[in-house]
Amino acid sequence: MPLPTIDDIRQAAARIKPYAHHTPVLTCTSLDHMTNAQLFFKCENFQKVGAFKFRGACNTVFSLSNTEAERGVATHSSGNHGAALALAAQLRHIPAHIVMPHNAPQVKREAIAGYGAHIIWCAPTQADREATIQRVVNETGAVFAHPSNDARVIAGQGTAALELHDDVPNLDMVLAPVGGGGLISGIALAMAALSPRTRVVAVEPNGADDAYRSLQSGTIQPSIHPQTIADGLRTSLGDLTFPIIQQHVEQIVTVSEDAIIHAMRQVWERMKIVIEPSSAVPVAAVLDQQIEVSGLRVGIVLSGGNVDLDTLPWGSCPIH
Amino acid sequence: MPLPTIDDIRQAAARIKPYAHHTPVLTCTSLDHMTNAQLFFKCENFQKVGAFKFRGACNTVFSLSNTEAERGVATHSSGNHGAALALAAQLRHIPAHIVMPHNAPQVKREAIAGYGAHIIWCAPTQADREATIQRVVNETGAVFAHPSNDARVIAGQGTAALELHDDVPNLDMVLAPVGGGGLISGIALAMAALSPRTRVVAVEPNGADDAYRSLQSGTIQPSIHPQTIADGLRTSLGDLTFPIIQQHVEQIVTVSEDAIIHAMRQVWERMKIVIEPSSAVPVAAVLDQQIEVSGLRVGIVLSGGNVDLDTLPWGSCPIH
Repeated sequence: MPLPTIDDIRQAAARIKPYAHHTPVLTCTSLDHMTNAQLFFKCENFQKVGAFKFRGACNTVFSLSNTEAERGVATHSSGNHGAALALAAQLRHIPAHIVMPHNAPQVKREAIAGYGAHIIWCAPTQADREATIQRVVNETGAVFAHPSNDARVIAGQGTAALELHDDVPNLDMVLAPVGGGGLISGIALAMAALSPRTRVVAVEPNGADDAYRSLQSGTIQPSIHPQTIADGLRTSLGDLTFPIIQQHVEQIVTVSEDAIIHAMRQVWERMKIVIEPSSAVPVAAVLDQQIEVSGLRVGIVLSGGNVDLDTLPWGSCPIH
Repeated sequence: MPLPTIDDIRQAAARIKPYAHHTPVLTCTSLDHMTNAQLFFKCENFQKVGAFKFRGACNTVFSLSNTEAERGVATHSSGNHGAALALAAQLRHIPAHIVMPHNAPQVKREAIAGYGAHIIWCAPTQADREATIQRVVNETGAVFAHPSNDARVIAGQGTAALELHDDVPNLDMVLAPVGGGGLISGIALAMAALSPRTRVVAVEPNGADDAYRSLQSGTIQPSIHPQTIADGLRTSLGDLTFPIIQQHVEQIVTVSEDAIIHAMRQVWERMKIVIEPSSAVPVAAVLDQQIEVSGLRVGIVLSGGNVDLDTLPWGSCPIH
């Protein structure tokens, strides 16, 4: 599959426009003071299904020919990609087959079932997950939709950078989290074309630093037993996302779990918005001074806002 | 003191414009579906100091003559009004004297001290609070700034409705919480002038239903031992706010504590924004069907977003 281009990203933007939100960019005086920078937060937590993943899933679904589409789409994900694909398929009135481990949280099952998807249970192992999705694809003829390593997904995620650049030109730097690399590679491709002077920096947890190790070694390093609260960032790079990151991402910064939790709480308290731990990862890089931003105009992509309010990282006592 | 007019509200808007945010109006497809209405959320949780109170405090401080201003302002509040007055005074470079009970939460002390205010401790009783503020005013010559029953405050809070009407014309209804009545009376005055067909409805907790009882009886009923999680709504109406409410507010709806907590959580989960319990009160009226909104365009004022994340009404387990 060829690497996506800025034209693919522009086409994706037109394709998803009727369905996806052009999300707002928020600023925060107190976080600016803390960092001595101008921070511009691209709020993908306000995106449909509460995460940027809807952009890529929507672009994938609406890129399919009618013949492909009628057999539906399939993926294995109990997280944001699963929900995003389910909603995109619902909007195109085609079937979505979502493979989920049988121990997935009730709230996630309900979200995906609520979008009318067909749920197929598997054992909570990588082997059974892959065997199950293969069986589903064979049986249904559905198109397998990868969560990140797919040119349509990368182009879809890149539309977030198109919007950010339109709303806030002349950024010195853009920070985004890296898991499978779909978001950061879409952003990096877009910014390289739109604003080559803007430095694109990826951030990941210390406990899931496979992208950092991959860039250091020059070959894709798998994410093995990732230990991080940022559940969206436990996956590995792919053969499409990795070369884009090599070419267009300036550096990969890693942050500690404490810094992620602190940053998440700061955003909730200061900005009054709900973000998930993965979103807090690039914020942590700035607040914990893992990257120098003093005096700069910095875009930060807040990737999503799906958290279980019953299990917050700082805990809390009921007042009732 | 004469009742404020729409001209006072327009002047307040011009006066606070350099300092206050024109807050965004958000919408939410899933809450619209739940209520079969079009809901427009005026996000005062994104206002300076995290609450609409900054509008009234800012208008009060910048309405003072230079002679009045140089002696400073004073109030008794450990909540949003205290923080709002402290910031407004800081912006005008005048002293703010804030009387707080000595058992006020550390986080609130720090917020107010952070705005450079002079804090005076009192015993946590209404009697000592009033004696202390009287002493402070006598000693310093500072202007006492009431949190709600003041024409400058009411005009300031009314600017939220000016913005809402500019951004979303032709609303069928506007809902806002009622505590001391500064917010709802400012909104009611503004909407009566700008859009007389828009129904203005106040909402308060069952456990602090003094405004409801006041409207029923035709005289101001004090709030005695209010029992509600909505800590911003425990105060009573005043001789300015009450007649405005009598004239311009169509009805007062009350909601249960369970409905408030449920509504608060729904807003956090669905809209990905942090609101405090008082903000959830008008949302509860709609979600718990205490008022009929089906088919209507409804503005809902989310009054603030200051919550202690360590003590959420639903509790939560740490995942770390």
